[in-house]
Amino acid sequence: MNIGIVGLGYWGPNLVRNFAALDAVEGVLCWDQDPARLATVVRQYPKTRAVGSLEELLRSDCAGVAVVTPISFHHPIGMEVLRRGKHLLVEKPIAASVREAEELVAEAARRSLVLMVDHTFLYTGAVRHMREVMEQGGIGEVYYVDSVRVNLGLFQHDVNVVWDLAPHDVSIMTHLLGRGPVAVSAVGVGHLNTMEDVAYLTLHFEGNVIGHLHVNWLAPVKVRRMLIGGSQKMIVYDDTEPSEKVKVYDRGVSIVSREGIYRTLVEYRTGDMSAPKLDTTEALALVTRDFLRAMQGGGPPLCDGTAGLDVVRVLEAADRSMRSGGALVRMDRP
Amino acid sequence: MNIGIVGLGYWGPNLVRNFAALDAVEGVLCWDQDPARLATVVRQYPKTRAVGSLEELLRSDCAGVAVVTPISFHHPIGMEVLRRGKHLLVEKPIAASVREAEELVAEAARRSLVLMVDHTFLYTGAVRHMREVMEQGGIGEVYYVDSVRVNLGLFQHDVNVVWDLAPHDVSIMTHLLGRGPVAVSAVGVGHLNTMEDVAYLTLHFEGNVIGHLHVNWLAPVKVRRMLIGGSQKMIVYDDTEPSEKVKVYDRGVSIVSREGIYRTLVEYRTGDMSAPKLDTTEALALVTRDFLRAMQGGGPPLCDGTAGLDVVRVLEAADRSMRSGGALVRMDRP
Amino acid sequence: MNIGIVGLGYWGPNLVRNFAALDAVEGVLCWDQDPARLATVVRQYPKTRAVGSLEELLRSDCAGVAVVTPISFHHPIGMEVLRRGKHLLVEKPIAASVREAEELVAEAARRSLVLMVDHTFLYTGAVRHMREVMEQGGIGEVYYVDSVRVNLGLFQHDVNVVWDLAPHDVSIMTHLLGRGPVAVSAVGVGHLNTMEDVAYLTLHFEGNVIGHLHVNWLAPVKVRRMLIGGSQKMIVYDDTEPSEKVKVYDRGVSIVSREGIYRTLVEYRTGDMSAPKLDTTEALALVTRDFLRAMQGGGPPLCDGTAGLDVVRVLEAADRSMRSGGALVRMDRP
Amino acid sequence: MNIGIVGLGYWGPNLVRNFAALDAVEGVLCWDQDPARLATVVRQYPKTRAVGSLEELLRSDCAGVAVVTPISFHHPIGMEVLRRGKHLLVEKPIAASVREAEELVAEAARRSLVLMVDHTFLYTGAVRHMREVMEQGGIGEVYYVDSVRVNLGLFQHDVNVVWDLAPHDVSIMTHLLGRGPVAVSAVGVGHLNTMEDVAYLTLHFEGNVIGHLHVNWLAPVKVRRMLIGGSQKMIVYDDTEPSEKVKVYDRGVSIVSREGIYRTLVEYRTGDMSAPKLDTTEALALVTRDFLRAMQGGGPPLCDGTAGLDVVRVLEAADRSMRSGGALVRMDRP
Repeated sequence: MNIGIVGLGYWGPNLVRNFAALDAVEGVLCWDQDPARLATVVRQYPKTRAVGSLEELLRSDCAGVAVVTPISFHHPIGMEVLRRGKHLLVEKPIAASVREAEELVAEAARRSLVLMVDHTFLYTGAVRHMREVMEQGGIGEVYYVDSVRVNLGLFQHDVNVVWDLAPHDVSIMTHLLGRGPVAVSAVGVGHLNTMEDVAYLTLHFEGNVIGHLHVNWLAPVKVRRMLIGGSQKMIVYDDTEPSEKVKVYDRGVSIVSREGIYRTLVEYRTGDMSAPKLDTTEALALVTRDFLRAMQGGGPPLCDGTAGLDVVRVLEAADRSMRSGGALVRMDRP
Repeated sequence: MNIGIVGLGYWGPNLVRNFAALDAVEGVLCWDQDPARLATVVRQYPKTRAVGSLEELLRSDCAGVAVVTPISFHHPIGMEVLRRGKHLLVEKPIAASVREAEELVAEAARRSLVLMVDHTFLYTGAVRHMREVMEQGGIGEVYYVDSVRVNLGLFQHDVNVVWDLAPHDVSIMTHLLGRGPVAVSAVGVGHLNTMEDVAYLTLHFEGNVIGHLHVNWLAPVKVRRMLIGGSQKMIVYDDTEPSEKVKVYDRGVSIVSREGIYRTLVEYRTGDMSAPKLDTTEALALVTRDFLRAMQGGGPPLCDGTAGLDVVRVLEAADRSMRSGGALVRMDRP
Repeated sequence: MNIGIVGLGYWGPNLVRNFAALDAVEGVLCWDQDPARLATVVRQYPKTRAVGSLEELLRSDCAGVAVVTPISFHHPIGMEVLRRGKHLLVEKPIAASVREAEELVAEAARRSLVLMVDHTFLYTGAVRHMREVMEQGGIGEVYYVDSVRVNLGLFQHDVNVVWDLAPHDVSIMTHLLGRGPVAVSAVGVGHLNTMEDVAYLTLHFEGNVIGHLHVNWLAPVKVRRMLIGGSQKMIVYDDTEPSEKVKVYDRGVSIVSREGIYRTLVEYRTGDMSAPKLDTTEALALVTRDFLRAMQGGGPPLCDGTAGLDVVRVLEAADRSMRSGGALVRMDRP
Repeated sequence: MNIGIVGLGYWGPNLVRNFAALDAVEGVLCWDQDPARLATVVRQYPKTRAVGSLEELLRSDCAGVAVVTPISFHHPIGMEVLRRGKHLLVEKPIAASVREAEELVAEAARRSLVLMVDHTFLYTGAVRHMREVMEQGGIGEVYYVDSVRVNLGLFQHDVNVVWDLAPHDVSIMTHLLGRGPVAVSAVGVGHLNTMEDVAYLTLHFEGNVIGHLHVNWLAPVKVRRMLIGGSQKMIVYDDTEPSEKVKVYDRGVSIVSREGIYRTLVEYRTGDMSAPKLDTTEALALVTRDFLRAMQGGGPPLCDGTAGLDVVRVLEAADRSMRSGGALVRMDRP
């Protein structure tokens, strides 16, 4: 089987490398608008072959195509990929708007093709472990999920910081909670041009659960930290840690008695902390394997088009909220 | 000179200790509604004397009184202190509402008495250093101030997490920026009772500066971290560090050229980091000295009643915003 | 019961505070050669009373005396305390030489008096937890214990860095291993005067266990870290951590097969890490309680004179090794 | 120009990648005794070509050869490389004994060929910065260099932990100090087989400077930390930090006056800390460039054969000291 890759910027070569490492993949057809970059990548990895144009790649016999371009190209190129009858893996976020994402989902459904989004983090050992713990009720009732994803740059030219960084946190949060938010609000500020470079998103989930994101291109240090509070346990997920990325704290707080406001007795519980051993398989290797598995009829991938669409719904709602002074935007899902 | 202390819970004894350490203070008159606690504290510190009632303390010859009670008592006891002609130091926040705070400010002004709020952090070596740097334009144009203040407990019974923790961050931010916000929005959720235990506040300042606070009683770990982004330098202030609490990063980002959205060239600059040596004098010692200085006619304290009132304005606006789904609340200052 | 305290420098006041907090203690008689310091401490703590001379303290009715002076005074004052029939608690190390320590042990035995050394760390929740785990074989066969205790100052005037800092690590190591070393070697260098300010000690234990200490007064940062390697688990004990001081790693390494040197297969095992909840009772409170318990006939304290003597044997051997170019000094214990 | 690489285990492929990235290098001839590994590496990198045997590689036209094999092969293969008139880059340590290293140095000299050792760390931005600071006397008089290099595995089969890990620290120390030690002592213990897996080395330098290394294959955590104490400044170099690897502390200690042992006044100075921006060029890229520069007649490389020999002298002395109970071994250099 051959795989096509469109776009060889920062992330594309990683997909090339991982697809090339799969036994079932015979060749990796590559294309980028920059011929020099294309030549460099093809020289660097085995099984690769450069094609002269996007059209050539689309006409080739590759069964699936990964689109790893700037976001605004996800929809036009992705639609073309699907129309040529090829399975589609799109870099996150799936598209630049809900409408675009819906069209991709509809087109893939119509043609019974795989549509997958590369929300890589869902395949990390850390997120898989947390998902497993939370799915089994291991932290009790969930109170909140707080995520900070900040660093200096990398500025994207065509989207704001929300569309660049928040897809990670939104996909992780909704994956861990097993549901999307019912309402979203956001504030953001742009300091260098009209696009927001610092933003805060609040995701309101049913059951009094609050999700919050801080995404920032102007921070002096790199922070990738998620706090998850539950009635029985709490989690700190720090992706910058070389090991012990996930720490589970046997800590909780509960109401012991309520006898009027001054008599509410709150009990704190503090027990051991443990950092589980995590699977360290490269997440992107699992992404490419899941794509192949789905292409071979093994059922939908973990992050299918609908999951990707749900993330874009949140991003678009956040944009709308930012444009209206942080107003609450309800998610009216079909 | 004698000083009176009302309230000997968690923080009161620290004020007793610091006032007792001042040469100009002859005696420290103490009162708490719990006789056992009162006896313990008086036994523990020199110069102290227990009084049998609040009335006895107010009738005594002490020149100034510190009110270190639950917030709801700040106004009634504080007003009584002022009416008896004594200078007043109030624990933060100055009062439980803007109206109450205004009355305290007005009463102190009418009687020409010192009214000071114990926003302790403003007296720390860390905040004083940052203030100095920022006042001199040392980080360039300020872009944002982001503050995280989370830990497990301590639950207050009479106020939510915003009134408990945010006074610190609001006072630090407005002090560092030299101005208050023009609008405030906030979201918060309460999980254990009706009061919010997790909350996020956004402070909008003039000049496109955004301030953001995360305050949380339900976090498994203690975080006290402030990020400050400027056009020329950026600061990380981590109060949990035993030393090197303030790190100044010679990092910046600027627009090099604007030739359409895809051609905006952004330049990142990364230089040295430095952690200045900070004065380690106990902040509360400086608070008590400043109160005495002001009582002795040395001019208003760093945190006078008006500064305390400004903080309460923000807290009240945050409460209002939380009650209305996170709506933006404009600060209409006189 | 009354307790006497001789020496109110850095550590003495902590003993005063903890003895004063015990119900069974009626009065704490204090003496220091510096009258100003004596007055300050007595004013600061309840139950205290200053005495005019060491002789007055020794003549008083106090049942036990804590000697918290520079090391060279431990023996002369301690001997006098015992001769007056009073129980004795000595700051670590118990004395300035093996001979002195032996005399103290012998004198206390002759008079059936309690002789205890304040090896405070043995009473911390961290060390007690590690001791419990290791006593039960919880880390398998012990391979090594490595300890680093460095910071800038505090220079002692009468002893080198080994006698100042190493008593902590030596007492912890021998306590955790349940036995003393069979041989000791050490190297040290003095840069500011003739006394060593940087030193490394190696303790050889039976069973191929190696203990190593790095003690240093000239380090820019404070490090208090112990690594313990076992065949089944490994421990990192970092005393500078505000919480999670002890981390137990489910990690090991074992020989799978030996088929010649190039065929030795070594298997690494990496599992979870866990940080147990530790008792946070102040260690010095437990020290004072243990002293009282022993005084009241409750059996010898955890750190009795013999334990203190064993530590001094190691320190003296280290000195001897340092004077002879790091030569191995065998411990010939009776 | 063609370059040959012998040995494609853990480190070899990194050399392949870096040589292939150099414009002046036309082809990289690779050989490994494991045909599968050879095939994988050659497929993975551009410019590469597999040869069928070591003999084929030696007969080829490559101008220089990198030997990246287990240590015991450095000398036999390296000698053969030199005898064929090719420049030689050897992985660290240069050889398994002083005698072997001397033969390599002599052979290269006789044939006027470049002999270089891959002490990679000397080319890192961190070490280069520290070298520059220290060369200019920037930390004052040097007191000590303390290095900890511990982790779990990787066990080498043919050498102990000293020969595996200590070459890094020995080469860094002697590079920073600009001279080798005058005497060496070491203690080590082997727990899994006869080879030491935990060891401590002490390097005595002229001028009362002490160097110390802790190397360990059995540690639960990875530590790569060097402390350097000077009379005016002190350095912490932590190679596990993603950024701010080098921190320079404006801290010092000095004798103010000496009036008898109890009157020696020591003054501590604590100022700012700063973490310089470091060049982040991959060190191995600089290694390969330096090798090429030297091959092209640009003068000896930073780490020439003599430098490599000096490191092996220290390792051999450490071995000898370990075999004789930690005795001091004097370095009798020609």
